[in-house]
Amino acid sequence: MVKKIPETLFWKDNVLLLLNQLELPYKVTYKECKNYKDVINAIKVMIVRGAPAIGVAAAYGMLLAGIKSAGLSSSAKLVFMKKAANDLISSRPTAVNLKWAVEKMMKVVEQSLKLNPENYISILYESATDIYNEDILTNMKMSEFGARLLKKDSVVITHCNAGALATAGYGTALGMIRTAYKNGKIKNVFVDETRPYLQGARLTAWELQQEKIPYTLITDNMAGYMMKTEKVDAVIVGADRIAMNGDVANKVGTYSLSILAKYHKIPFYVVAPSSTVDFATLYGIKIKIEERSADEVLKINGRSIAPKDTQVRYPGFDITPASNITMIITEKGVYKPNKISILKKVK
Amino acid sequence: MVKKIPETLFWKDNVLLLLNQLELPYKVTYKECKNYKDVINAIKVMIVRGAPAIGVAAAYGMLLAGIKSAGLSSSAKLVFMKKAANDLISSRPTAVNLKWAVEKMMKVVEQSLKLNPENYISILYESATDIYNEDILTNMKMSEFGARLLKKDSVVITHCNAGALATAGYGTALGMIRTAYKNGKIKNVFVDETRPYLQGARLTAWELQQEKIPYTLITDNMAGYMMKTEKVDAVIVGADRIAMNGDVANKVGTYSLSILAKYHKIPFYVVAPSSTVDFATLYGIKIKIEERSADEVLKINGRSIAPKDTQVRYPGFDITPASNITMIITEKGVYKPNKISILKKVK
Repeated sequence: MVKKIPETLFWKDNVLLLLNQLELPYKVTYKECKNYKDVINAIKVMIVRGAPAIGVAAAYGMLLAGIKSAGLSSSAKLVFMKKAANDLISSRPTAVNLKWAVEKMMKVVEQSLKLNPENYISILYESATDIYNEDILTNMKMSEFGARLLKKDSVVITHCNAGALATAGYGTALGMIRTAYKNGKIKNVFVDETRPYLQGARLTAWELQQEKIPYTLITDNMAGYMMKTEKVDAVIVGADRIAMNGDVANKVGTYSLSILAKYHKIPFYVVAPSSTVDFATLYGIKIKIEERSADEVLKINGRSIAPKDTQVRYPGFDITPASNITMIITEKGVYKPNKISILKKVK
Repeated sequence: MVKKIPETLFWKDNVLLLLNQLELPYKVTYKECKNYKDVINAIKVMIVRGAPAIGVAAAYGMLLAGIKSAGLSSSAKLVFMKKAANDLISSRPTAVNLKWAVEKMMKVVEQSLKLNPENYISILYESATDIYNEDILTNMKMSEFGARLLKKDSVVITHCNAGALATAGYGTALGMIRTAYKNGKIKNVFVDETRPYLQGARLTAWELQQEKIPYTLITDNMAGYMMKTEKVDAVIVGADRIAMNGDVANKVGTYSLSILAKYHKIPFYVVAPSSTVDFATLYGIKIKIEERSADEVLKINGRSIAPKDTQVRYPGFDITPASNITMIITEKGVYKPNKISILKKVK
């Protein structure tokens, strides 16, 4: 029997269940969200993380808000839902899929209240489910495109977790690695541990282990040495937001990795759904970078690693310039970063 | 009253006391070494670390071995001391100062047994003390040279710990930062936490805090982002071994940092005593890189951070090519890396 990887999130009996990623890889537990505010909190504390996954979770958050608003008048419903939408969008500032999914749901709210108010909840349910299913399908498509770019027995490096856990399922960067592995194209995956939250060590290593894909964990500062001394064929990462000029916001450390890849002449691939492209943002420099709590740097497993009162920086993300990226791989095709704005026209 | 920084190591009543760096910054405790084998163990488990500090500790290790051998015949003494010397040199393979200090002591052993056998122990004591004192003096000299290279209110990045704790006192890279700070040349120090052993977070942050030098702790993967978004004026690191062509072995992560500095056109300085230059090694590629235990990557504060049975790489060091280094700063002067072999001729 194939061991099934626990689902990142699912809907059951009017409750959204989120795999608690703070407990991985030690325990598989689910956080119950009965209210859209539970979803907001789960996004903030990173029980659910990864740009596509928080988008899907927020879509279900809108469904939960819809259920909450069921007894209200149509106009009160609209006010309530607009507030829920704003609160959800504000829960994390960098990933754009969150905004994309919530705005998609908000459009459904407006239309159904106008055209089909009696089926309001079931329409919201269908829309959230569509976003969920579409995300998985989208990931499989881009993974197929991406895998074609790799040659047999490639050694790759990935950063953070852009896997099944960062999406409704299958994954973006790690989805590409999954598909490539099935096609005999992956020999080994170097996994950056990804301080401070250790998404690589805790989540990516866990996913790869479940699927029996060979991997080697490294600390982030070893990536350059591995590129120099091992035969590394590609760097493959996800994205939280892509600007119109092809600059990419992703987990902090991605920018450094792109410079190391360029220096060693190793292709650098970004794998993300087209919903990650932010048509409203022209340049990477315009993307808001979330600064998270110093405690997340200063403490590991609850124990301090530095002297008391140590000042810390913790940008959650950084911006990789288009010039350091070889290709951006989406479900709609593979694009040179400076051509990504073409997606505006691609259906 | 000025709070005195605890000494890295000192000799008292025929015992070598080593500040236990595994316990910092939580506790200041000393490990007693009554036997050269205690010193070997302390070096292996990193109670004492930093190339110059383990050199000085090993010199005292030779003194401890000398005391142990006091009752033996002259020829038996020589056999015993040669074994002690070999064991000490083998305790860590990358840093060359260890070998340098032990060989210096071994020469003293041979000469004193021949010329002055009745004063054998006191001669060894004097030689170890000379190595200790010389190390501090040497650090102050190179720090003075290095500080001249910085302009007023510089923002610098350092990696690992090349401070008082990595030497008999004062420090190399951090010594340069100390002197520069006294001269009004340091505005802020970005401290790489330096996974896996967290020497930056635990040791460098602690030293800077004691001296009230402003610092900001970052995870290693943030260095590129800081170079891009903050005004970083220099990267300053120590060295464990310098090849004749100017390639430098230092704590893993140094190589990546050198590439990031080059990309951002930031000067990259290596600060080390001339005893770090290995005249027997022509190229960096010839330097043996220690692979340490996977457990040091997989566990932080004793708790695992990754799934069981995760494969790990842990090269303790990496090689930075001469072409990525702006200047090597020694107590004998400041050299372009490709000119470092001139030290062979400099008294």
